[in-house]
Amino acid sequence: MANGKIHIFDTTLRDGEQVPGCKLNSREKLELALQLEALGVDIIEAGFPISSPGDFASVEMIAKAVKNATVCGLSRAVQKDIETAAAALKHAARPRIHTGIGTSDSHIKAKFNATREEILERAVQAVKWARNFTDDVEFYAEDAGRTQNEYLARVVEAVIKAGATVVNIPDTTGYCLPHQYGEKIAYLINNVPNVDKAILSCHCHNDLGLATANSIAGIIAGARQIECTINGLGERAGNTSLEEVVMVIKQHPDMGFHTNINTKALNPMSRLVSDTMRMPVQPNKAIVGANAFSHSSGIHQDGFLKDAQTYEIINPVEVGADLSKIVLTARSGRSALAFRFRKLGFDFTRNDIDTLYEQFLQVADRKKEVGDEDLLDMAKQHQPESILN
Amino acid sequence: MANGKIHIFDTTLRDGEQVPGCKLNSREKLELALQLEALGVDIIEAGFPISSPGDFASVEMIAKAVKNATVCGLSRAVQKDIETAAAALKHAARPRIHTGIGTSDSHIKAKFNATREEILERAVQAVKWARNFTDDVEFYAEDAGRTQNEYLARVVEAVIKAGATVVNIPDTTGYCLPHQYGEKIAYLINNVPNVDKAILSCHCHNDLGLATANSIAGIIAGARQIECTINGLGERAGNTSLEEVVMVIKQHPDMGFHTNINTKALNPMSRLVSDTMRMPVQPNKAIVGANAFSHSSGIHQDGFLKDAQTYEIINPVEVGADLSKIVLTARSGRSALAFRFRKLGFDFTRNDIDTLYEQFLQVADRKKEVGDEDLLDMAKQHQPESILN
Repeated sequence: MANGKIHIFDTTLRDGEQVPGCKLNSREKLELALQLEALGVDIIEAGFPISSPGDFASVEMIAKAVKNATVCGLSRAVQKDIETAAAALKHAARPRIHTGIGTSDSHIKAKFNATREEILERAVQAVKWARNFTDDVEFYAEDAGRTQNEYLARVVEAVIKAGATVVNIPDTTGYCLPHQYGEKIAYLINNVPNVDKAILSCHCHNDLGLATANSIAGIIAGARQIECTINGLGERAGNTSLEEVVMVIKQHPDMGFHTNINTKALNPMSRLVSDTMRMPVQPNKAIVGANAFSHSSGIHQDGFLKDAQTYEIINPVEVGADLSKIVLTARSGRSALAFRFRKLGFDFTRNDIDTLYEQFLQVADRKKEVGDEDLLDMAKQHQPESILN
Repeated sequence: MANGKIHIFDTTLRDGEQVPGCKLNSREKLELALQLEALGVDIIEAGFPISSPGDFASVEMIAKAVKNATVCGLSRAVQKDIETAAAALKHAARPRIHTGIGTSDSHIKAKFNATREEILERAVQAVKWARNFTDDVEFYAEDAGRTQNEYLARVVEAVIKAGATVVNIPDTTGYCLPHQYGEKIAYLINNVPNVDKAILSCHCHNDLGLATANSIAGIIAGARQIECTINGLGERAGNTSLEEVVMVIKQHPDMGFHTNINTKALNPMSRLVSDTMRMPVQPNKAIVGANAFSHSSGIHQDGFLKDAQTYEIINPVEVGADLSKIVLTARSGRSALAFRFRKLGFDFTRNDIDTLYEQFLQVADRKKEVGDEDLLDMAKQHQPESILN
């Protein structure tokens, strides 16, 4: 646990791209992959090569073009899937095959109509097949969130013995509470004898809004990789947001973790993914929403203007966002009004501001937002001689 | 701790409404308040009466119209604010005044240029003023998330002694990790002698994507009220999402908590707020996003069709969402294709599906989504005589 480096495994191009409406062509996938590499992600999951000829071609193009990041292809625990993933990754500088199978009783029975022992065998076999093609093999124990811990520990031990270098513990349905997910990782760290031979990975879904917290609970408990997507895209309510876990790690240095992400590229990357995949980001999205650094209530604006740290824990420059905004609405106070007047060149006295504030509220109660033009009108009426340049 | 009822305090009309672009007129605010009451929220924070004449009028209208929910008005720890809030709430069946002041060193120094003792006195005085008007007084210790615990415990003890019935512990800047926020609540439960005379409340912001997890950590540690908004609206990255905490509580009955919320009204309420406030909800938003119950990857669709519980922890009907969708894309598998053909009236054999699947992938690689018309074309070409009705 001495090494606090958290590997960022981006699956925007696989778990994100499989979302209704998000499908990309090969050129778009390649462009995003190169930007993800520039952002500093450690592993790019480029696609699911057996799923379609188009996706095979995309993974192949990305494998050829990406030089520093590991390029990963998904497969089921099926020989043909693994061979196809290997073929798509043939030219990768750092290829990883990601293979796996469902391990919860719900998956074993409803999906595979199999037994735990059969699934264990198929898991080991899949890792062995994959190791024929590359030394970097990640195994996923699908629905690990609902898999009984003792059996999960047996699976993890067996796949590490078979050659898996990373073991992914997905909360596939987004069901776990943070302390439960953390306890699951801790259980594996404490009960899998060969766990030091592999990295445990967190793959959390956001169905209950807990994906970020679960991933952080996972690394606190000993996992060293987080699987995530830009803007939290992914099946249903999506995956863990890359930008959120990266900034939690950065803003909480006491935890002793770090990532390789260039945080100043987070907002540009978010916009590129949103535009290319045509998936809007809501204004109140953490880190990358349009309002993430806007202050509008009077109490907040007043405090913020006295000292930004009163209401802001992240400097927007650090995540490549526009500078913090002071938006004037009917909930704004005198200090924000005076601030905006000063920016427009008017240095009014306290008494002036008191008078102007009453006028301002009347305008603001009628409009959603009070703009510079409204302020100029007020200033002119109040003190026609005061106009500066 | 015997009582597991969690009070849901909705602040969509106050912390949500102060967001740039979200301002509502009185008629809109009233309509939303009545719908929030129908949804089953325990407390509606209707506005900040001193902030503008328009907001005063809105709070007054809501106070007159709402009969079952408590109606709450915000104020600073300032006599005129409190009197104005009381005046706006005069006709409420169950009025609550919410007053408070910043307690972190950052707020005490940068915002108030005061000392801890002065702030303590002002806090007590504010609660006493408010108690002149109503027995239901909530005190907020602003920036409690960054307030030193010993001092915070002294403030909480003093305001309860002065008559506060609810004490709000806001993580104003959205900085806390879940275990830190939980420890803060636990510290207060264990170190404030009169804490049993009041309810502790969680008010978390989502700047790092942790608001839901922090609120849940808070109630596990002993808080019994959660302050939240529909769609997670609010300053910057927003507040805790009402729909997320309510469904975490409902999906994890082992925690022993319950709320009064009619969950089937969650999706209609989300749409009403989004439309009225003109704030889009991203498709991958938990519980209320357009894709929250969509399945698109082949692996997921296959499992889902065998048994919905394989991939779905919430039945969409339970939260008033449309039925789970099976969307056909290049990542879909044979079982989803066969399922959709059956819905269109074609009961193809396995061999038929194998052939049709190759054709399907070619279409799907070109298009984002394969619709019923595409499927009908394929079916006609494949087996012209098979067309049913």
